[in-house]
Amino acid sequence: MAAAGKHRDAILTESIRLFRQKGYAATGLADILAASGAPKGSLYHYFPGGKVEIGAKAVEIAGRTVTRTLETLAEISDGPGDLVARYLEMLAGWLIQSGYRDGCPITTTLLETVPEHQSIREAGSVAFAGWARVLTDAALRAGISEARAVRLAHFAIAALEGALIQCRVSGSDEPLKLAAAELSALYEAAQKV
Amino acid sequence: MAAAGKHRDAILTESIRLFRQKGYAATGLADILAASGAPKGSLYHYFPGGKVEIGAKAVEIAGRTVTRTLETLAEISDGPGDLVARYLEMLAGWLIQSGYRDGCPITTTLLETVPEHQSIREAGSVAFAGWARVLTDAALRAGISEARAVRLAHFAIAALEGALIQCRVSGSDEPLKLAAAELSALYEAAQKV
Repeated sequence: MAAAGKHRDAILTESIRLFRQKGYAATGLADILAASGAPKGSLYHYFPGGKVEIGAKAVEIAGRTVTRTLETLAEISDGPGDLVARYLEMLAGWLIQSGYRDGCPITTTLLETVPEHQSIREAGSVAFAGWARVLTDAALRAGISEARAVRLAHFAIAALEGALIQCRVSGSDEPLKLAAAELSALYEAAQKV
Repeated sequence: MAAAGKHRDAILTESIRLFRQKGYAATGLADILAASGAPKGSLYHYFPGGKVEIGAKAVEIAGRTVTRTLETLAEISDGPGDLVARYLEMLAGWLIQSGYRDGCPITTTLLETVPEHQSIREAGSVAFAGWARVLTDAALRAGISEARAVRLAHFAIAALEGALIQCRVSGSDEPLKLAAAELSALYEAAQKV
């Protein structure tokens, strides 16, 4: 990778981290530059759309990382309930390790910017759709009907997003454990139909 | 109410609205003053702790408003599933009316500020606990065991918070409808045990 690409990647990596922990509005371009070590000129060179373009790209990349993690877990999981439980356990580990700072990598930015910034909103939609697709596929492979698989996928994402908020506020991983247990039970019930 | 109290109330009302729609960090004290029409001096007079104190108070008041709404709905609802469905329908109405801007009145601020600002975090904990209490009581009245009632209350809050995020990103109220249907079914199943 060229040195130039290195700066671009560093800007995005640090943006994802800062947006996740501090939020989008509280993260200034100066913070991103300082954390990434990229020269000032590189910012508008790579992101002529400025902060909004960085925000959309950060949501896109972070969302895709989650999709890939889910795909990897799907390969080693014993069905959709186990997949969701494994992923929520992983999320709980990251939360604890970060002192309850690392919640969802895209939610805070999305809540701060939609519907005003369409490009960020679209990146969020694509991310959620990607996660739902992996969960839906896992449910289909377990013999769950397509209609039920799609509904459970979106509901599972809602529950995990909400549980992440509860964990950050309570400083406990109990909400994620509870969501994992409830969602696993729902998937088990759906497999028996 | 004295004129002074009027300024205090206006500052809080506008802060809740701005934090909900734009987020905490993006809302400057100047925005709050402009929207509330309060004189500059009144801000530090009523809130010597500045923006963090306003943030904590805004979360406290908005959280209590939700609790009261749930209490009112609990009185006219036919059990906990119906209560949740009615509340989610109300949330969907507010979302649509506001062009998908009015999501949860406390989530964005919480995600932006915890765990750094303890006072805001505590206000969030109290809010979530208040909502969970109303849902738990409704489930107990429907004959659901206490352990199950408590779990379903927290899970329902997680699901509704996540669904609100999905609605804001998708510009559709489908996620709230889905959450309402799934949660009602869970409550129905719990009543049959």
